[in-house]
Amino acid sequence: MVEIARLRIGLVIVSLSLASFGSLRSADRLPNFVVIFADDLGYGDLGCFGHPTIRTPHLDRMAAEGMKLTQFYSASSVCTPSRAALLTGRLPIRSGMCSSRRRVLFPNSKGGLPAAEITLAEALKTKGYVTGCVGKWHLGHLPQFLPTNNGFDFYYGIPYSNDMDFVGKMGAREALFAPKLEYWNVPLMRNVEIIERPVDQTTITERYTEEGVRFIKAHKGRPFFLYLPHSMPHVPLFTSERYRGKSRRGLYGDVIEELDGSVGRILETLRAEGIAEQTLVFFTSDNGPWLPFRDHGGSAGPLREGKGTTWDGGMREPCIAWWPKRISARTVHAGLTSTMDIFTTCLKLAGVALPTDRRIDGVDMTALLTHGAPSLRDTVYFYRGQELFAIRKGVFKAHFTTQNSVEQPSGPQRHDPPLLFNLEVDPGERQEIGADYPKVLAELKHLAEKRQSELKPRPSQLEM
Amino acid sequence: MVEIARLRIGLVIVSLSLASFGSLRSADRLPNFVVIFADDLGYGDLGCFGHPTIRTPHLDRMAAEGMKLTQFYSASSVCTPSRAALLTGRLPIRSGMCSSRRRVLFPNSKGGLPAAEITLAEALKTKGYVTGCVGKWHLGHLPQFLPTNNGFDFYYGIPYSNDMDFVGKMGAREALFAPKLEYWNVPLMRNVEIIERPVDQTTITERYTEEGVRFIKAHKGRPFFLYLPHSMPHVPLFTSERYRGKSRRGLYGDVIEELDGSVGRILETLRAEGIAEQTLVFFTSDNGPWLPFRDHGGSAGPLREGKGTTWDGGMREPCIAWWPKRISARTVHAGLTSTMDIFTTCLKLAGVALPTDRRIDGVDMTALLTHGAPSLRDTVYFYRGQELFAIRKGVFKAHFTTQNSVEQPSGPQRHDPPLLFNLEVDPGERQEIGADYPKVLAELKHLAEKRQSELKPRPSQLEM
Repeated sequence: MVEIARLRIGLVIVSLSLASFGSLRSADRLPNFVVIFADDLGYGDLGCFGHPTIRTPHLDRMAAEGMKLTQFYSASSVCTPSRAALLTGRLPIRSGMCSSRRRVLFPNSKGGLPAAEITLAEALKTKGYVTGCVGKWHLGHLPQFLPTNNGFDFYYGIPYSNDMDFVGKMGAREALFAPKLEYWNVPLMRNVEIIERPVDQTTITERYTEEGVRFIKAHKGRPFFLYLPHSMPHVPLFTSERYRGKSRRGLYGDVIEELDGSVGRILETLRAEGIAEQTLVFFTSDNGPWLPFRDHGGSAGPLREGKGTTWDGGMREPCIAWWPKRISARTVHAGLTSTMDIFTTCLKLAGVALPTDRRIDGVDMTALLTHGAPSLRDTVYFYRGQELFAIRKGVFKAHFTTQNSVEQPSGPQRHDPPLLFNLEVDPGERQEIGADYPKVLAELKHLAEKRQSELKPRPSQLEM
Repeated sequence: MVEIARLRIGLVIVSLSLASFGSLRSADRLPNFVVIFADDLGYGDLGCFGHPTIRTPHLDRMAAEGMKLTQFYSASSVCTPSRAALLTGRLPIRSGMCSSRRRVLFPNSKGGLPAAEITLAEALKTKGYVTGCVGKWHLGHLPQFLPTNNGFDFYYGIPYSNDMDFVGKMGAREALFAPKLEYWNVPLMRNVEIIERPVDQTTITERYTEEGVRFIKAHKGRPFFLYLPHSMPHVPLFTSERYRGKSRRGLYGDVIEELDGSVGRILETLRAEGIAEQTLVFFTSDNGPWLPFRDHGGSAGPLREGKGTTWDGGMREPCIAWWPKRISARTVHAGLTSTMDIFTTCLKLAGVALPTDRRIDGVDMTALLTHGAPSLRDTVYFYRGQELFAIRKGVFKAHFTTQNSVEQPSGPQRHDPPLLFNLEVDPGERQEIGADYPKVLAELKHLAEKRQSELKPRPSQLEM
């Protein structure tokens, strides 16, 4: 027994040494970050999040090897504000990147992400990161707002949504259901130059992937941040020939399966280059599925409603975090998390101090990711434009105002008393329980009022 | 190079020999079968099928190691007919085990599974299988209909649903939302004797599990068939103390997490006894979630409606097939499968000839399970009682009649032309496309008429 005990102690010492060695080694350099951001992907559109017919083997494997987060929220139910929040760690209402009238930036917009905002790329550059943005930007297309003026060394992609610059002859909406390349005149840019117009959207996912792979290979020797916001599956849907007609879910499924293949290539590149263990990868989306586009839109799975609404279907997203040897395989069902937390987490891991001259809404997920510790976030605010429509605190979500996209759509509906749901018991927001929880309702109403009085929106960049 | 090639050939020969040896060894005895059948479990209620807050690590592992079937159907949207179909491989309308008036058997029913029907247990007994039924029967509680008169050597369980024999003083429905043991007087039986009344439902899942484990251990030396139809998560919901209050999804989640633990114990027993590789295990459910019971009912995830309806939410079920070394890890998104196919598959694997004096509706899934071959099934019939409400053929499903449970419930709604959906593109049955597919509609109408004229229902056992 004594011998065995000694042997065990010996093993413990050896493994402790290895562990220290491991952390010393990984401390040799700062971790890389890759953020893959889909566009209008529904909570229910991946195999590992329950879709019956869309095949996503690479994302399923990423989820099986990494961390699957089932209560992860974007900061807005539409594109521009969601992206602003991801890259600044701040609610869009703080940066002026939201509006109740014009909900996103359009080709005739004059605004963009204010220079005073600190993007994740800018923050990481202070530690010597190489930064690349490959994909859809949508935070301002005038020169001063482009990625290369927002901390990115490199940019390749489209400056706003793929359904803008419509030049077709039929109705714009009709065109989206039977898309042809020539209906849109969206530019493709490399850094600050337009290199193709209209962009060939059939090869866009493939080309983003190639650029991403090239970026990783070129910069594997030093810390890098690759932001990869795909244009798809936002309508109009296009795929490369290799994926066309291949899925059982129609064109939308083809598009998701191509995105899945792209994720597979990115992760495979990290493995092949021997830097998987130094790279934290997130996969998520900007907002929920665009349901009025029927089979050209995605599925929120068990969640209610979709894009554009503050029901969970509009803002709760599939999220997978992957980092071999650092994140162990698990599903996190408890605790709230947000796209804004990616900002704070990456800063923390890169040793960048959080800005102290402004409020950051992201919380640090490091302990959650690496040790499965409880999330530090207990509240999610659901804004529509500049108006606070709902708050989730813990399991409860109170809707003060709702506005639907497909369920009897109309204007805003005010709710007094607010509608109350328990999102863990009733993820589909179908069982209104306000009458049973008057104290919770009162607390959330108070929180909303406090919030409204404290947080004055900046002038909107989207109305310029 | 020559040396390496030789070495490789050597390795191939060794591995071929091992493979032959393996198949010889497994051919030494017939495979065991375990069918675990939940009650009213929704398509969306397991982690691996997308539920955000219910934790099902054992079922998730079973799915990751085995085959996850995403287009698997039960043969009825309610209990008695669904079970009759599972155990006979035949549509309930052929056995008389369905009715449009009384949809299931009740404690005052006089009928049951006709003696002329051949159950899976009876068929397997011809090859010397030991057979056990542990759980809810619901195919007739009079002596002649009990499991021990239907091919099972052993029975332990309740003869009908856990919400029957109501003796509470308030309304029966009200009682289901705040269940107490004393409200129901359901008996627990061992073989043909009542051993407890009312059954203690708080420990029922635990006791079924113990009995199942004991059965496996006792009979591991010869081929066995264990049918394990749990009483849960049918309302009233009860859990053992160990699981009470533990899930984030409320009492319903506690119940599912206890079922998940039970599945874990069954699979662990098979592994520990060294017979996992000789045992094919299925996990599925009898029908969809009972939605009017709100948070006491489950979730159909992305599917429409639930129990009692012929929308997919009523009859499409999570299904996992597990058989180490024989079934390789994969998700099957394509091809239709059914509870009735379990009957035919087990007969095939046990070397039992299919009965030739009657129509069997199950198809053989062996090649699908062991080699991922396409399913031989291309059609699913959706009956409500004795009436054909819908047909799915390939990707298309036509509804001739619908009757809802929660979505504007009313009587039957006839549809002429039928409602048509593409179930692979639109699993939620929201995008009616009949106008685009007149030929498909005509074909399915013709198929329905042919079916109605050919298949005359037997006198219903449920109306006796």
